Amino acid sequence: MKKKNIIELTRIDTEGYRHLKKRPLKVVCDNVRSMHNIGALFRTSDAFLVDEIILGGISGCPPHPEIAKTALGAENSVAWRHVDDTLTELLSLRNEGWKILVLEQTHGSIPLQLYNRPEEERAVLVIGNEVEGVDQAIVDIADACLEIPQYGTKHSLNVSCSAAIALWQLLPS
Amino acid sequence: MKKKNIIELTRIDTEGYRHLKKRPLKVVCDNVRSMHNIGALFRTSDAFLVDEIILGGISGCPPHPEIAKTALGAENSVAWRHVDDTLTELLSLRNEGWKILVLEQTHGSIPLQLYNRPEEERAVLVIGNEVEGVDQAIVDIADACLEIPQYGTKHSLNVSCSAAIALWQLLPS
Repeated sequence: MKKKNIIELTRIDTEGYRHLKKRPLKVVCDNVRSMHNIGALFRTSDAFLVDEIILGGISGCPPHPEIAKTALGAENSVAWRHVDDTLTELLSLRNEGWKILVLEQTHGSIPLQLYNRPEEERAVLVIGNEVEGVDQAIVDIADACLEIPQYGTKHSLNVSCSAAIALWQLLPS
Repeated sequence: MKKKNIIELTRIDTEGYRHLKKRPLKVVCDNVRSMHNIGALFRTSDAFLVDEIILGGISGCPPHPEIAKTALGAENSVAWRHVDDTLTELLSLRNEGWKILVLEQTHGSIPLQLYNRPEEERAVLVIGNEVEGVDQAIVDIADACLEIPQYGTKHSLNVSCSAAIALWQLLPS
């Protein structure tokens, strides 16, 4: 099988992307500190037509050379904004009818593969800080907590990897 | 819902992990240069009980401070080895009955979600260099090329993110 070259990998340009219909899913970063993780998240969100990335609290924001290094331009295609207070923003989105899905291992969390998201459900996926995870006050207002079952020695996955898995699962091709 | 603390997130220790039955899937890195990507891959492989990571060519190897920073110890739980010549290694694995699955966008590649892997199939997932992808000579000997459908402006995902998605899909919980 011949690998596709960059021309055969037909992709839309940034201007065209802006007009493309997005999937009704936003990603909210609750204090995601690493620029590498933010950059990778932009690239995954670009690929899967995420509605918007909301960078909360101390989450890294473009423009930043470390984000650019992993986002490779996806920071210019995916809509994003920064909010100081993530909890207030989520309460407001919930009032507008968005479902709050938190990616976190909690008592009562649902294994990710068992969450059946209706295709048109407007949902927000909240991912958390590399060390602390998602803040308990945010977990408290979640409609559901989703957990990626893990069988090894470590307590969590890298946050850009778990976000990628969750977006793949919640936004089926 | 209350977040689980580190004690409630019961995890096995490194010694116990060595004796745990692994899934029959190896990950082969074809010149994966970034230590951050290698570290994140170790963590994902630890979580999903990957049989072994084979670090081919110029792929970064433990011990390395940048790998440790993202692997967070998973470089001590997951079995790994380095090979100079990835193609020769894959030919040898294929002779032993391992199926060669390449994560690459090729003419004739299968959308990842459509590949039905029998649970006990012994398979090798090959992931490629951050810029060049998987070498064409390796693609040429693949039993199947798997592609993650992407709808945005960028031509690929971050390699640790695409590996995470592929492992999640190929090793269902």
